[in-house]
Amino acid sequence: MATIRLYMTMSLDGYITGPQDSPDNPMGIGGFRLFDWLSHRHDPGPSKQVYAEASATRALISGRRTYEHADRWHGDHHDGVPIFVLTRHIPDGPPPGSIRYVSDVDECAAQARAAAGDGEVMVHGAGAGQALLRAGQLDELELHLVPVLLGQGRRLFDHLSAEPIELDPIRRLTTPHVTHLRYRVRGRHERQDQDGA
Amino acid sequence: MATIRLYMTMSLDGYITGPQDSPDNPMGIGGFRLFDWLSHRHDPGPSKQVYAEASATRALISGRRTYEHADRWHGDHHDGVPIFVLTRHIPDGPPPGSIRYVSDVDECAAQARAAAGDGEVMVHGAGAGQALLRAGQLDELELHLVPVLLGQGRRLFDHLSAEPIELDPIRRLTTPHVTHLRYRVRGRHERQDQDGA
Repeated sequence: MATIRLYMTMSLDGYITGPQDSPDNPMGIGGFRLFDWLSHRHDPGPSKQVYAEASATRALISGRRTYEHADRWHGDHHDGVPIFVLTRHIPDGPPPGSIRYVSDVDECAAQARAAAGDGEVMVHGAGAGQALLRAGQLDELELHLVPVLLGQGRRLFDHLSAEPIELDPIRRLTTPHVTHLRYRVRGRHERQDQDGA
Repeated sequence: MATIRLYMTMSLDGYITGPQDSPDNPMGIGGFRLFDWLSHRHDPGPSKQVYAEASATRALISGRRTYEHADRWHGDHHDGVPIFVLTRHIPDGPPPGSIRYVSDVDECAAQARAAAGDGEVMVHGAGAGQALLRAGQLDELELHLVPVLLGQGRRLFDHLSAEPIELDPIRRLTTPHVTHLRYRVRGRHERQDQDGA
């Protein structure tokens, strides 16, 4: 079954945008600082490897906000892979390119896994990440931890319940610009079994 | 001049306690999970090294909440080093042991540096860390990043301004239980010069 992995860049204080993010300023005030490490994505080293892995994913799940703030990727995030946009309210009009709208999180995960086949599913956006975590559908996290304190903005982890979620560190890759941390979410299948019991 | 370094254990989602922390339950619900790595502080390896460094600091700055929740450390945090408690309201009665109360953050930093001599100052608590960061008095951060999502609780980074603070990674040490991340706060002296101009 395809792995569903959250890929997000986060400041050390947990922000994925600066304050006042909007469609006109999708990273918020000062938030583009987080993407400085992407300038090094073609240099030999860990960031190149991580970027190549992300680019090789075969389906994408995005939250609605991320999707809109990214100008709907003009219908194509990378290589035309299927994009599943998790949204409470299905937008009017046909979705562009390889986009599909899904309002149920489990259905969204199932469709993305099926689309990715024996590949991997990239998740983008705090809303989608949190929804998948709450549903027990997130398998892994790949966080690009940036050495800056933004102070304010939109947090990656918010609106979760007080139920702790254990993680197993899988990989840590490091450059002067960013630390790439990969974790496996522990006990997803156990939790599902309990829920179904 | 003595380095002032924040030592804190933090979950991957940025929490230093679980929810509902109080003097009776200082780590909040489920928060003691964060300290599992301390079970390995005497095993040969990175955690032993980091713990030994912390224990060798020669003064301590604490926020008032941390101080009270830790039962005032019965007057002695380690080796009788001077403890400077940053508090808006000086408590009644004489402080126990090596405690001194200070209400001004710059004064607190100056006294702690003087007390530590050519040693280092440990900072403990989110409130004290944030106050020192805002005042440009924090030199370094040593974060023990624990692979768990607590979901809710008290955050280490909160109540900061939207002014980004750049960090330089100094050291990353890793075990299966925890990742020890050390950063230097960039431009502290430059910022102070600007403030004084």
